Amino acid sequence: MTRRRSERSERSAEPAPAAAREPARPRSRSLGLSLDPEDPRSLYQQLFDEIVARIGKGAFPPGFRLPPTRQLSDELDVHRNTVVRAYRDLEEAGFVESTVGRGTFVKQLPRASATAPPPIDTRAVEPAPHTIAPAPSLPWASLLAERATSEPIRRVAKRTRRPLFGPAIDLSRLQPGPDLLPTKLLTRCLEHVLDRSGGRALGYAPLEGAASLREQIALDLARQGVPASADDVIVTSGSQQALDVIVRSLVDPGDTVLVQAPTYGGALQIFAAAGARVEGLSNDAEGPLVPTAARGRPKLLYLMPNHANPTGGCISERRRRELVTWARGRGVPIVEDDYAEDLELDTLPTPPAMRALDGEVLYTSSYSKRLVPALRIGFVLAPEPLRPTLCALQHTASLGSSLLLQLTLAELLERGYGRAHAARMREVYRSRRDALVDALEKHLEGRIAVPRPARGVTAWLPLPSSIDLESLGETARREGVLVATGDLFSGARTDPEADAHGVRLAYCFEPEERLAEGARRFAKALEAHWPQGNASKRSKGPRAEGDAALV
Amino acid sequence: MTRRRSERSERSAEPAPAAAREPARPRSRSLGLSLDPEDPRSLYQQLFDEIVARIGKGAFPPGFRLPPTRQLSDELDVHRNTVVRAYRDLEEAGFVESTVGRGTFVKQLPRASATAPPPIDTRAVEPAPHTIAPAPSLPWASLLAERATSEPIRRVAKRTRRPLFGPAIDLSRLQPGPDLLPTKLLTRCLEHVLDRSGGRALGYAPLEGAASLREQIALDLARQGVPASADDVIVTSGSQQALDVIVRSLVDPGDTVLVQAPTYGGALQIFAAAGARVEGLSNDAEGPLVPTAARGRPKLLYLMPNHANPTGGCISERRRRELVTWARGRGVPIVEDDYAEDLELDTLPTPPAMRALDGEVLYTSSYSKRLVPALRIGFVLAPEPLRPTLCALQHTASLGSSLLLQLTLAELLERGYGRAHAARMREVYRSRRDALVDALEKHLEGRIAVPRPARGVTAWLPLPSSIDLESLGETARREGVLVATGDLFSGARTDPEADAHGVRLAYCFEPEERLAEGARRFAKALEAHWPQGNASKRSKGPRAEGDAALV
Repeated sequence: MTRRRSERSERSAEPAPAAAREPARPRSRSLGLSLDPEDPRSLYQQLFDEIVARIGKGAFPPGFRLPPTRQLSDELDVHRNTVVRAYRDLEEAGFVESTVGRGTFVKQLPRASATAPPPIDTRAVEPAPHTIAPAPSLPWASLLAERATSEPIRRVAKRTRRPLFGPAIDLSRLQPGPDLLPTKLLTRCLEHVLDRSGGRALGYAPLEGAASLREQIALDLARQGVPASADDVIVTSGSQQALDVIVRSLVDPGDTVLVQAPTYGGALQIFAAAGARVEGLSNDAEGPLVPTAARGRPKLLYLMPNHANPTGGCISERRRRELVTWARGRGVPIVEDDYAEDLELDTLPTPPAMRALDGEVLYTSSYSKRLVPALRIGFVLAPEPLRPTLCALQHTASLGSSLLLQLTLAELLERGYGRAHAARMREVYRSRRDALVDALEKHLEGRIAVPRPARGVTAWLPLPSSIDLESLGETARREGVLVATGDLFSGARTDPEADAHGVRLAYCFEPEERLAEGARRFAKALEAHWPQGNASKRSKGPRAEGDAALV
Repeated sequence: MTRRRSERSERSAEPAPAAAREPARPRSRSLGLSLDPEDPRSLYQQLFDEIVARIGKGAFPPGFRLPPTRQLSDELDVHRNTVVRAYRDLEEAGFVESTVGRGTFVKQLPRASATAPPPIDTRAVEPAPHTIAPAPSLPWASLLAERATSEPIRRVAKRTRRPLFGPAIDLSRLQPGPDLLPTKLLTRCLEHVLDRSGGRALGYAPLEGAASLREQIALDLARQGVPASADDVIVTSGSQQALDVIVRSLVDPGDTVLVQAPTYGGALQIFAAAGARVEGLSNDAEGPLVPTAARGRPKLLYLMPNHANPTGGCISERRRRELVTWARGRGVPIVEDDYAEDLELDTLPTPPAMRALDGEVLYTSSYSKRLVPALRIGFVLAPEPLRPTLCALQHTASLGSSLLLQLTLAELLERGYGRAHAARMREVYRSRRDALVDALEKHLEGRIAVPRPARGVTAWLPLPSSIDLESLGETARREGVLVATGDLFSGARTDPEADAHGVRLAYCFEPEERLAEGARRFAKALEAHWPQGNASKRSKGPRAEGDAALV
């Protein structure tokens, strides 16, 4: 080793310090605190001032643990008492608090510039006179990008954090309840993949997704009548990322995107983040109307043909053919979002997938609703010329989804677990749907015709337009039930508000008895908002779209 | 149930068909094929034409399996022989092929409009005279968004797919080799999480990430001298998504982003996808120069202070302080990308994190390089006012990363496995670094001073500017070694090309003996490109930045 180092020194202008070749010891990185012996202030005073300045700048946030006194005195090459003194003064001045055995932690400081008062720490001491004022923080609000301040993005940013398993009955959550998730099957497949592939399952996934998963997805789709080959499949982090990547590939700021109105709030967020102009298509009994020339030259048509979110409508076969023909003729790509794929609860004939009518249709779906959200796996079937760009933008967005989870899902599907589990889920969802709808019928006492959905995991209740939805949602929350009000699905500029006037009730997350109780609580909340007088006793919203509707 | 249905009929204008309430049987969705008894063509001829039309439109892609004859005849309500006859004609005409016991599959068709000839199927028969021409596909190239056609995105889209574990020695891949991945520790933690939390680990994650993981990340950072509290942490799908979400939050199309030149290719993709104008800062011995007024009003300063990718430089403490002061004064957010965090191979003093100097700095890192890429977990420490927007945009992009993997990583960190594994990795990386650098020194025979990096998992070799990097990379590939050439890291508009003139050699993925052989192959490739004459025997690129550099 000596020989090698001396060889290097001969060639290199700057030989490495001797220490550089020693085996590394674990050590804490310096925090950049420094003391100046020439400074007229004492060392402990300097240290006090340096730490207060960091706290003021937010560099040492509340809860941050200062280095142990011995470590810091070593680093700064001062007597330990210097650090002890500085820490004691910091504690007296209310900047930090010490707990024996745990250490010294930065406390929450009242901030001068905060718009809302921070939680008050009753133990906080008035800052000492030598405290410097916190440096002004960056003007974050004015630094935000235009698209980041659009309404659909702000709507999420504002959203109250909901406890995942709080006491409220959750009819807003579009995911299988914890009791429905195939923990054992998943564990078995995970173990098998890790055992068989070891570290090879733990690297990055190929750009387009693991080959075995793409093969299984194509087979799974073919079984459901959606023609696909493995080459068509690009694996994504849920169908959310699929749509985001499609939009980033095709939509420039200012471009128009057409949607069924109302539509999925997560899609509205994606369009907003892309700076798109969103136009809503009105619906008749067969689905959204074929766009007229007045719609200009849209860049994308986004549809959920089998079970529209939130209203639950299913587009008729004839309308599908008309829309595909229109799109091909006008050169407008269609995105077919089949998020409720494989969630057919009743044996109704389902019209062919739009992708089965035209191979240029971009078809996307996800394994979150019917299998496991935490897989974070969705996919898009895309025409060959578009695939390299979709892969590149997915790489840009996140370097792909987890290879381990991709291989695990492939294993689940290959073993037939996915299909068996989906069949079990359909049975449970059928019972849950009936539990919710029966209870709604009972408690709403005929006020609204309650649809009984034939597909998917949500029911849509249209409401009189005089009811303020946000306020209804708040009342429901106070009654102990969470619902998704129609305003979350509105955002298309030409969307008639009436289309989204109602609430979406999900029956996938909660078990039957809680669904029934949730229906009772919701009916009670609705009672408080119901317009007076018989004239408005029936909904004026669009016809309820349930199992019999729009097929 | 009968009672309920009749109740519904009384209220609902359209009662559900009786079949709707029967338990669903698994059934294939119709493909939308239909026959018309009034049509002058025979039924099998109609079916033939319908299927050929779908193949022509790409709706039935190559490899797609047609429904079994019995199933299709049931669906269409025709005699099975009609379907058998149509399938036989399709096979004779070369559209499909049948395999006994497997089914009937669509074949690859030569496409009239393809720019490159498709792989020729020697078994393909000339299309029969009744074949309709394939419908023209959508003009995808002209439909792409402007940002999707920018150079850094096209660069990835063009990239040859590399086999994950092919025969070539891979010095381009920035990930731990499969032998280094902690399969057993990960399996143990996964099993523990699934066992303890069951279905609760398999839903969607909270917007900002799982609380237990945020807590562990803050502790892990504090151990390394990066001040953080759990509240500061937002969990993302790798640091790639963290940067993407930051940029989508702050950068409008046309805004300027400042980077150290050259810089990480994945960051250049993100900036390109945002429509940003990227300007490269030149470096001196202490790091990138503090921007002058001529730089206009940039919206972001993106830095990798501890181990720049690709060149490996480390910004001095003094320069860090200058940059932080400049950014605060000018109101420019700094992104500190510490992707090589915890990968310090030699005991050199590491300057304080920029985030430790100013709490407004956005600090991001990932567990991909030092732990497991397939976790797809990174994070960003962000000032409080920015957090809701970052969360909303992450929700928009992918609904968050896998809750199961978040809880598993929290478990890994809490048990101390992460820290123990990182220590083991540092030892292995040190040996691998030495194996690579020693072999390079031997085979390059003094042509280039080979830096021995003190941190991270890559070495940077500056090369004479007369060497064509793309061509060198191709020669190396033919010799059986993959390297990352400097052109992948260049893309800033004012980036002097010389800055990126070299190759990056990663020593994390391959074991020692393959690293040594890779160095030999690379030296052989370089020999073929080395300029003639003694004058250019030494690199004219910037000074090699290794363990002694820029600290």
